[in-house]
Amino acid sequence: MSPEIVFDPYTKLYSEATELIRSSDIRDLMSVTGRSDIVSFAGGLPFVGGLPPEDLSSVMASVLSLGMDEAFQYCETDGLETLKSRLIEIMALEGLEAEPEHVLVTTGSQQALDLLARLFIDPGDTIVTEGPTYVGALAAFRPVAPRIVTVPLDDLGIRTSILREEMERPGAPVPKFIYVVPNFHNPAGVTMHHRRRRELLDIAREHDVLVLEDNPYGLLRFEGESLPPLASHDRHHVIYIGTLSKIVAPGIRVGWVLAPAPVIDRLSTLKQSADLCSSSLNQMFAEEYLRRGFCEKNLVKLREIYRSRRDVMLKSLEKHFPPEAHWTIPQGGIFIWVTLPEYLDSAKMLPMAIDRKVAFVPGSAFYPDGSGANRIRLNFSFPHEDRISWGIEVLGEVVRKEMDLYRSLGLDKQRRGGPESPA
Amino acid sequence: MSPEIVFDPYTKLYSEATELIRSSDIRDLMSVTGRSDIVSFAGGLPFVGGLPPEDLSSVMASVLSLGMDEAFQYCETDGLETLKSRLIEIMALEGLEAEPEHVLVTTGSQQALDLLARLFIDPGDTIVTEGPTYVGALAAFRPVAPRIVTVPLDDLGIRTSILREEMERPGAPVPKFIYVVPNFHNPAGVTMHHRRRRELLDIAREHDVLVLEDNPYGLLRFEGESLPPLASHDRHHVIYIGTLSKIVAPGIRVGWVLAPAPVIDRLSTLKQSADLCSSSLNQMFAEEYLRRGFCEKNLVKLREIYRSRRDVMLKSLEKHFPPEAHWTIPQGGIFIWVTLPEYLDSAKMLPMAIDRKVAFVPGSAFYPDGSGANRIRLNFSFPHEDRISWGIEVLGEVVRKEMDLYRSLGLDKQRRGGPESPA
Repeated sequence: MSPEIVFDPYTKLYSEATELIRSSDIRDLMSVTGRSDIVSFAGGLPFVGGLPPEDLSSVMASVLSLGMDEAFQYCETDGLETLKSRLIEIMALEGLEAEPEHVLVTTGSQQALDLLARLFIDPGDTIVTEGPTYVGALAAFRPVAPRIVTVPLDDLGIRTSILREEMERPGAPVPKFIYVVPNFHNPAGVTMHHRRRRELLDIAREHDVLVLEDNPYGLLRFEGESLPPLASHDRHHVIYIGTLSKIVAPGIRVGWVLAPAPVIDRLSTLKQSADLCSSSLNQMFAEEYLRRGFCEKNLVKLREIYRSRRDVMLKSLEKHFPPEAHWTIPQGGIFIWVTLPEYLDSAKMLPMAIDRKVAFVPGSAFYPDGSGANRIRLNFSFPHEDRISWGIEVLGEVVRKEMDLYRSLGLDKQRRGGPESPA
Repeated sequence: MSPEIVFDPYTKLYSEATELIRSSDIRDLMSVTGRSDIVSFAGGLPFVGGLPPEDLSSVMASVLSLGMDEAFQYCETDGLETLKSRLIEIMALEGLEAEPEHVLVTTGSQQALDLLARLFIDPGDTIVTEGPTYVGALAAFRPVAPRIVTVPLDDLGIRTSILREEMERPGAPVPKFIYVVPNFHNPAGVTMHHRRRRELLDIAREHDVLVLEDNPYGLLRFEGESLPPLASHDRHHVIYIGTLSKIVAPGIRVGWVLAPAPVIDRLSTLKQSADLCSSSLNQMFAEEYLRRGFCEKNLVKLREIYRSRRDVMLKSLEKHFPPEAHWTIPQGGIFIWVTLPEYLDSAKMLPMAIDRKVAFVPGSAFYPDGSGANRIRLNFSFPHEDRISWGIEVLGEVVRKEMDLYRSLGLDKQRRGGPESPA
């Protein structure tokens, strides 16, 4: 056999699920993100360069000296009990009380999304997401072929009045769940207002529908008052997804699900067939890191760094982007969401930007129906401040140049169809 | 909400896939395996207690001192290039030549099975497994609802004449793949003879069917001559699954797939939605551990320890099991497969054994149709020699007592239905 197959002779063997998945923009961009000559606003990478090396080394030394047999062996599918207790402490920091028997440790929160999709979705089932929504959630949901209803966001989070209308439309199918990212939304950067939270929970209860609450960034608040997770108000209707990726490090792949006991039991069986268990070494590392209070210590530093990078990005946007553009002002997290004039297509601008050594994710990646073409997601947690200023300046030039081109051709008067979301 | 739900109010929300999965015997037994008062022959745990602590510590120190930013960050979905090169060296030890672009790093080989199942199987598709077969493979295949055809094993591996008959039966559907564990089979302990390998490859080529070759134990040979992997003869029809779990340690969850480029590309997209990427920290640890030659060094020791434990188990079986029982004599790996008189049901004996502090896995777990009730899988890699002698003696007593009971009731003359496999 020749290793260089261009034509794919295995096509006829693939499952229907495979055909539903498209290689996502994120994966393609990941390779660009890794290039040191590119200023990347594309990934959702935390800044791990700020982790104190001596903390990491001493935590690892403890794990290796005290628990080597356990660290290198298989462990229970649902995760180490010692780690679960620490994850409960992390949730408590945001006002969410939990019990170990309701926690399942997952291989990053992406696995949580994948397992929840497989647990609940049959082909054709309806689910609800925000529009825009996390591209990784769409990637997890798509292979099980749901019908995805998108409810737009604004600066106060999911527009619950539209959600209610959608759910109460005569003949509307009851969704299996409503997926939301309430804090420092990915990609939109916005945080769900407390009234919207109450309304969302009211709707969930009235219609007996589950809410999947994905909260990777909740502890990364720089300013303003934090709101307790949805799950703290209703553990029966809310399944909570957490991760250490943004508050400790993604390289250890530790996420978790908090859910009612029967759901945890089912998820655990699914996880067993997915990867048997998550890495014991990484779980023990996480446990010891959390036990020593290093996470909270580092969060103080991270918030400061991220706030400062956000401020640089906001200032640069103000300075270099055209007045027709607008963007969200996140109070925490790692993303800013930019809306360009409606006639622009950010996906078309991406090659130009990369050619000039700047990367971002086009808005269309975040909508199940591919709308949002005039938007872009910018990450500010990973690049250093001087690279942020430089990169936004370049991006501003790319945008202005594209606008000039459209104007000169008279294409700026055309409107594209598709749903509009004010965020 | 009350956290103690006995009745499951979420039942109506679960997908059909969820209903196809039963909580496996292995998961239930894992909790028993962990109890130090139990001599467990149940798990498939390698002996990690023999890993030299100074090797592990110095490898980890290197990773942390040289690559901290990379180790704690996300990495490419398909795995670190540096690790892939080391995995290629590992495959070369068994005579399998490969290239990095045909390798996908997975979160243990269990994830490889899960992704391959999702890539190839639509509900109702036919696949072929050996009978018995790896319970974790069944767990990965079941949620996508294939029709599983079981081809029996004997001491020379899969019975290719029966496979051929099955495939050439008029109207028989072409299977999506044939799943085999050629070396030191789990659970049967047998190794596929070179004539059977040739015949299997002939059948795969004639019918243009894929073979999934799962080879976790190939490097754990104590005696006899090793045979090159099936994939070394036909890279077009064979997808190879490897893992470091049994030759380095399972706690780092590093497995891989070797497959044609278009298959790797599809699997990578599936993996992205499953867990984004495998742990960078673990991959860098594995790479450095392999680079220093610690794996091969430790393999020399492991083979000696396992051979000795196997010998103790074989001698104990000879001494304490009734003459009506027989078992396989593995030349490597970690399992012995015991066949008891046909009227016995090993699942019924398990509680008695656990009551006497000994655990095993009942044979029925390894057959898709639940046959194999008179068989048991015994693991010899994990328990120490003195515990093996003691545990097999106790198990022998449990078996004899059960036989006496059946004889006294005249039940030993009854035959149970179901397919028979001579292994």
